[in-house]
Amino acid sequence: MSRVIAVLNGPNLNLLGEREPDIYGHATLPEAEALASEAAQRAGYALDFRQSNHEGVLVDAIQELRKTVAGLVINPAGFTHTSVAIHDALTTVRGPVVEVHLSNLHRREEWRRISQVSTVADCVIMGCGVRGYALAVDYITSSPAERG
Amino acid sequence: MSRVIAVLNGPNLNLLGEREPDIYGHATLPEAEALASEAAQRAGYALDFRQSNHEGVLVDAIQELRKTVAGLVINPAGFTHTSVAIHDALTTVRGPVVEVHLSNLHRREEWRRISQVSTVADCVIMGCGVRGYALAVDYITSSPAERG
Amino acid sequence: MSRVIAVLNGPNLNLLGEREPDIYGHATLPEAEALASEAAQRAGYALDFRQSNHEGVLVDAIQELRKTVAGLVINPAGFTHTSVAIHDALTTVRGPVVEVHLSNLHRREEWRRISQVSTVADCVIMGCGVRGYALAVDYITSSPAERG
Amino acid sequence: MSRVIAVLNGPNLNLLGEREPDIYGHATLPEAEALASEAAQRAGYALDFRQSNHEGVLVDAIQELRKTVAGLVINPAGFTHTSVAIHDALTTVRGPVVEVHLSNLHRREEWRRISQVSTVADCVIMGCGVRGYALAVDYITSSPAERG
Amino acid sequence: MSRVIAVLNGPNLNLLGEREPDIYGHATLPEAEALASEAAQRAGYALDFRQSNHEGVLVDAIQELRKTVAGLVINPAGFTHTSVAIHDALTTVRGPVVEVHLSNLHRREEWRRISQVSTVADCVIMGCGVRGYALAVDYITSSPAERG
Amino acid sequence: MSRVIAVLNGPNLNLLGEREPDIYGHATLPEAEALASEAAQRAGYALDFRQSNHEGVLVDAIQELRKTVAGLVINPAGFTHTSVAIHDALTTVRGPVVEVHLSNLHRREEWRRISQVSTVADCVIMGCGVRGYALAVDYITSSPAERG
Amino acid sequence: MSRVIAVLNGPNLNLLGEREPDIYGHATLPEAEALASEAAQRAGYALDFRQSNHEGVLVDAIQELRKTVAGLVINPAGFTHTSVAIHDALTTVRGPVVEVHLSNLHRREEWRRISQVSTVADCVIMGCGVRGYALAVDYITSSPAERG
Amino acid sequence: MSRVIAVLNGPNLNLLGEREPDIYGHATLPEAEALASEAAQRAGYALDFRQSNHEGVLVDAIQELRKTVAGLVINPAGFTHTSVAIHDALTTVRGPVVEVHLSNLHRREEWRRISQVSTVADCVIMGCGVRGYALAVDYITSSPAERG
Amino acid sequence: MSRVIAVLNGPNLNLLGEREPDIYGHATLPEAEALASEAAQRAGYALDFRQSNHEGVLVDAIQELRKTVAGLVINPAGFTHTSVAIHDALTTVRGPVVEVHLSNLHRREEWRRISQVSTVADCVIMGCGVRGYALAVDYITSSPAERG
Amino acid sequence: MSRVIAVLNGPNLNLLGEREPDIYGHATLPEAEALASEAAQRAGYALDFRQSNHEGVLVDAIQELRKTVAGLVINPAGFTHTSVAIHDALTTVRGPVVEVHLSNLHRREEWRRISQVSTVADCVIMGCGVRGYALAVDYITSSPAERG
Amino acid sequence: MSRVIAVLNGPNLNLLGEREPDIYGHATLPEAEALASEAAQRAGYALDFRQSNHEGVLVDAIQELRKTVAGLVINPAGFTHTSVAIHDALTTVRGPVVEVHLSNLHRREEWRRISQVSTVADCVIMGCGVRGYALAVDYITSSPAERG
Amino acid sequence: MSRVIAVLNGPNLNLLGEREPDIYGHATLPEAEALASEAAQRAGYALDFRQSNHEGVLVDAIQELRKTVAGLVINPAGFTHTSVAIHDALTTVRGPVVEVHLSNLHRREEWRRISQVSTVADCVIMGCGVRGYALAVDYITSSPAERG
Repeated sequence: MSRVIAVLNGPNLNLLGEREPDIYGHATLPEAEALASEAAQRAGYALDFRQSNHEGVLVDAIQELRKTVAGLVINPAGFTHTSVAIHDALTTVRGPVVEVHLSNLHRREEWRRISQVSTVADCVIMGCGVRGYALAVDYITSSPAERG
Repeated sequence: MSRVIAVLNGPNLNLLGEREPDIYGHATLPEAEALASEAAQRAGYALDFRQSNHEGVLVDAIQELRKTVAGLVINPAGFTHTSVAIHDALTTVRGPVVEVHLSNLHRREEWRRISQVSTVADCVIMGCGVRGYALAVDYITSSPAERG
Repeated sequence: MSRVIAVLNGPNLNLLGEREPDIYGHATLPEAEALASEAAQRAGYALDFRQSNHEGVLVDAIQELRKTVAGLVINPAGFTHTSVAIHDALTTVRGPVVEVHLSNLHRREEWRRISQVSTVADCVIMGCGVRGYALAVDYITSSPAERG
Repeated sequence: MSRVIAVLNGPNLNLLGEREPDIYGHATLPEAEALASEAAQRAGYALDFRQSNHEGVLVDAIQELRKTVAGLVINPAGFTHTSVAIHDALTTVRGPVVEVHLSNLHRREEWRRISQVSTVADCVIMGCGVRGYALAVDYITSSPAERG
Repeated sequence: MSRVIAVLNGPNLNLLGEREPDIYGHATLPEAEALASEAAQRAGYALDFRQSNHEGVLVDAIQELRKTVAGLVINPAGFTHTSVAIHDALTTVRGPVVEVHLSNLHRREEWRRISQVSTVADCVIMGCGVRGYALAVDYITSSPAERG
Repeated sequence: MSRVIAVLNGPNLNLLGEREPDIYGHATLPEAEALASEAAQRAGYALDFRQSNHEGVLVDAIQELRKTVAGLVINPAGFTHTSVAIHDALTTVRGPVVEVHLSNLHRREEWRRISQVSTVADCVIMGCGVRGYALAVDYITSSPAERG
Repeated sequence: MSRVIAVLNGPNLNLLGEREPDIYGHATLPEAEALASEAAQRAGYALDFRQSNHEGVLVDAIQELRKTVAGLVINPAGFTHTSVAIHDALTTVRGPVVEVHLSNLHRREEWRRISQVSTVADCVIMGCGVRGYALAVDYITSSPAERG
Repeated sequence: MSRVIAVLNGPNLNLLGEREPDIYGHATLPEAEALASEAAQRAGYALDFRQSNHEGVLVDAIQELRKTVAGLVINPAGFTHTSVAIHDALTTVRGPVVEVHLSNLHRREEWRRISQVSTVADCVIMGCGVRGYALAVDYITSSPAERG
Repeated sequence: MSRVIAVLNGPNLNLLGEREPDIYGHATLPEAEALASEAAQRAGYALDFRQSNHEGVLVDAIQELRKTVAGLVINPAGFTHTSVAIHDALTTVRGPVVEVHLSNLHRREEWRRISQVSTVADCVIMGCGVRGYALAVDYITSSPAERG
Repeated sequence: MSRVIAVLNGPNLNLLGEREPDIYGHATLPEAEALASEAAQRAGYALDFRQSNHEGVLVDAIQELRKTVAGLVINPAGFTHTSVAIHDALTTVRGPVVEVHLSNLHRREEWRRISQVSTVADCVIMGCGVRGYALAVDYITSSPAERG
Repeated sequence: MSRVIAVLNGPNLNLLGEREPDIYGHATLPEAEALASEAAQRAGYALDFRQSNHEGVLVDAIQELRKTVAGLVINPAGFTHTSVAIHDALTTVRGPVVEVHLSNLHRREEWRRISQVSTVADCVIMGCGVRGYALAVDYITSSPAERG
Repeated sequence: MSRVIAVLNGPNLNLLGEREPDIYGHATLPEAEALASEAAQRAGYALDFRQSNHEGVLVDAIQELRKTVAGLVINPAGFTHTSVAIHDALTTVRGPVVEVHLSNLHRREEWRRISQVSTVADCVIMGCGVRGYALAVDYITSSPAERG
């Protein structure tokens, strides 16, 4: 069985820590990766951590990784609310899919409350800041019985 | 600083493991408590774990606990979508508030997608089964910097 | 097999006969109970007839009765349109669940037309006045083949 | 006073028992008629039981029967949600009007939840299968005081 | 040029004067026809006045009359809000089409405010009682310049 | 009893014949007045015909005329869809109120289909061009029995 | 500090006592002014009480009074639901702004439930009849601490 | 005639003065009671002032008090927007019912603008802070003529 | 196995070629039948081609044909958007059901975009003019593997 | 005149046959291309068949091909519901544009029923599986008269 | 050809610089006029600059100016969202019509996003502060080719 | 301080002058660039003018330019209504952001009226054709005081 967990990040997350820190916090994307990586290593997994501003690149990545990872964490960022392409690609992933958002979308604009991706994710973790990546990895590495 | 984390559970969660196991899994509420308790103890915290079918009892509990806990985890269950009383009570809680749902509400009836509680929670964890309680506790016991 | 049929009544139904008689008629709740009881006895069943103004008390009652009754009749009254807690509790009841309303909700305010409970009831009888309780009992005591 | 109760059935109900038995059950329309007839005879009434796939034929029938029946039972089937013509015709019926549906419309497509006919019916009985016809007849033959 | 004006009446208008006189008044359909006929004759036109409870019969009539009348008056009654078939048939009529309603639909149920037919009628006259038929005929027989 | 019929015209109707003739026709407001006046005189009535671009002036006029006219015809034009002030003023008018529109509002922008005024008018005549004023006057001067 | 309280009344309120007394009561506007004046005098304030059917006149008045009054009471009447101009003008008023309605708007047409003005008023008093003006004055003259 | 006025307070109002003082002000519930009591005594009335976080307790209270009070003031707080049970109970109260809110609900979240209770209250007073309780009492003790 | 394909046409399609040719083209219904027939014969099938302006006649036809045809093509025309009766009847057809529209409904009025029938059809072909009938026949006669 | 027909496929269609075969069938994209190619060759046309997960690549392709193809078939897949860029690009294509979907979108999630692309396509073919590509090619190669 | 450009300003703009400067800036209306005038003079045009709190006055002004100006700039302010009267009047203006708003309406309340006036303006300039007036004048004085 | 102004153009704008000239005019994108460049040079600025059909390329460009330009002009074209990625990227731009559209979106399809981008732009200029680019540059180069 695969020992790699993929973490995919959507548009503008490369600016994390700099963009709207009141909402997203001061931690950077490499710091998020470090936290997630630490959680993965603790459970004996490696991390494949990527970011892109291009929807097509993310779709390509999901297709590439869909059979070879133990689980997939995705923060779709700006593609959260509209991308049917990511939605459809995620239906092909083996193993658990976790949708992560740094901020609590329910405390922002009304239109951010409904995600196009959530219906194909197994679970959703939002508002936990960069810690959310580590929690998502913890979920994937926990036993199926605990995951319910 | 307080070393107690409160976990409040809404109506029908006392039937966990028995009610609609396809949706909620086979783990019981005591098993959920055990997982959360273990996570709390690992970080040096105790757990105050409660369940009630009465909205007023939950509001009373939030008021009672609001100043004395390190953080509050709530699975509002059937009160998720309508309870302004719980929503209003949660605004008085010191320390982080985490909303937990066993199932991914976005994969169920349309009306379950919007929670009345989410706008006053710091973060939301859904679809992680009973493991979600442990993740919520982990979040509360993690450093503020990581929480973003 | 159980020979008891439960009949649960929601808030303000204790005022039946006195409250808005143009809508609800002049019969009282004890008279409704008598009609239902008579129908039950005719078919060899006993009745467990209750009323409460507290949603939590009704949820507790459904949980208590869910495995021990031949069927459950519920007039959720003021909880009809909002109570997810009662909705969720009803999914655990063995045997048929009948939702009863004294008045025809479609002839009243627009928001009364959709019941939160109907999706988990087997059938709905509304507008038949206190006679509706007897019809609900008749349904529960009829043969499964006739119930369709 | 009239001793005849009319029962009108809308489109496709002639296929009852054959069409989508998971939803409508295996009983046929003649079996439904038999059940209703038995209930009517027990109370000293005769039945005028009809079915048509033509909305106009049903409107004509309501007009023809409107002054001569003790009550009218209608299962509008496919005309339930749109027929203003049947709605308007029913306002001219003397005596109680009962709307019957074999299935519980609230457990099906969203658009089936609101009936155009319900606002002019005295009561609505749904989800009771073919037994519903007998319950409707029971209601019509019960005393006005019990009907509320 | 044709000297015949068609007047088509939808379902339940044959009960005019008897059905809901508070809304529709006490005049009967023959009295309405007499008023319209008088107006037509004053201008040198004959009337072809019909009523049906069947949508298909009205569609057939519109098709039959569409090239041979000087104008068409239609009171679609119960078909007003839903009949695309009548809507489509009316697009084939030569000469003016007038939609007439006895009552002012805006003072009744909300759903009666929008007519499916109005977008293909040249004009709409509502709330004028049976006098409305005569006004419609007057409009058709007035000079094109005045009709604007 | 009064022998004066008031005709009130809303904003921009003073440009009739010049503004958007494809929609409103080539007849001018004085020509409309002439047609209406002729209809009034034929029945032994005089006309009080006014136009204003100011909502307040129209409200003042309705108040001034409300007890002294045999009936009131109003083409609210641009105030049709929003003016509660005119709506409220019209409730004080004795005698019939007729709402007139030159064009058929249902064939124009979607938001023109619902008039704020229609619920307090006795009847609505639209799409009949300037002829509509004369029809409105005819209605007011017809016998109450015919008006239904 | 100013000792004058302005009370502005919108369209048709000059007909108070005469217009729809079932809704608005039998008291007249001068009687309302008397009640408000008495309340003002008791607290040592004078009243500037005006009415207009013209939205522009009310906007002008708000602008004129905005810096010189201790508080402003407004019953926007027919302008309640649509007037952005009054809404915008009220944002410039120093001191408390109280929106008053004679009737309880929630018991009338659905569209009357939301006021365009409420978001810029400090408080809203509705359904108290002419007594509402006196209550509004009481509020303005009470101590800031009590006003909350 | 009764000389007692009931004042019922919904969930979380026991925290008044402490919870979100920017919205609700710094005055406490006992201070509100003092203000209301003073207003009642001035008019020769006593006060029955209660608070509960339990919807059922409030419904029970309304039923208990419904025939014995001169009027009832209710601040439904968190139950404002959803409680049909309180709505239904209030229909049984003799004498005026006043709905009070400390804050102006129209300046907060959109969903707070519509109250389930307002349609059965005689009047609504919102945004007047704790002073609102006194104004409500004043209303109840004023003469019926002034109340309109 | 049956070698007959049914083609049913809804109201006003008998006027094809004459009615609104800008939308529907100049080909007539017999020409459409010829095209479809040719396609059927090429694959060894016969055609049963019908048209009616009566919804009930179409429902009767579907019931008559439901077990004896290789597939059914239906252009519901004016019944497309409202007919639950046709919708329900189509659920009983054995073999593929193809919904055909001559015009592309998405380029017309907004309300034409959603068909009541599409959810029970296997496929939908619209905007292909009379050629669409031949394509539908081709689909029915193609191999199940290609149909997907 | 051009003898090339372009067929463009949107995101995830490269996984056809593997992704959700219950919905999309077991045929692969090369098999779809073969079917379409065969249909084209039969009519003397060549095929330019492409797939991309990148919206921009599809827009570039439409621009490149817009003047040089006899017609364009597009299955926008995940871009169907949101891509205004593809919608706008398609307005520049000479020759017919056919929108194809493998599944019948009306039998899936509600939000899939409305396509952003349909308003600029000449026709829409959905639910015909991979056979749909061949039907689309047939349409493009048929005579303009038949296309209507 | 006319060398005058009209600039019309709606309600409360006379308070510019004083009212809500966070939204509208500190510049006054005379300063806005000066900027616009300077732009006009540079291109050889004169300015006719007006403001009114009265909708009717603005409608009168548009009618007066409609044939004699080279173009019309309008900041409808509070009338933006509701005035059909201004909308209708603007359809009669010869030469370009530019709608100007000082603030970016999309960053304010939701209901400010849709303007009733925009559909009859040639272009819309918002959020540019008083500079927007000068840009509007620049547009009107630029060559038709550049205006597109 | 930077003397470069960026102008970014979304999908299909490379076809400007050729695509739907009735809507977008006959000027080409190079001509638009020339106009904007001229305006920039007049104020002492250089232009960085780009176009892409790829959303990701535009997001990359905004990120690249966000700290180094004096202001940014964006015509998001087909991405206007859906791109949260562009919306989010724009929040990181220093200096003013101007959204430009060649056509007046309010005169086109309903769904074009709301832009996802407008809430993060400082101002919006639409309907001014290619002249709009020059106006946007003028705005950026004007003094902050004038910009309001």
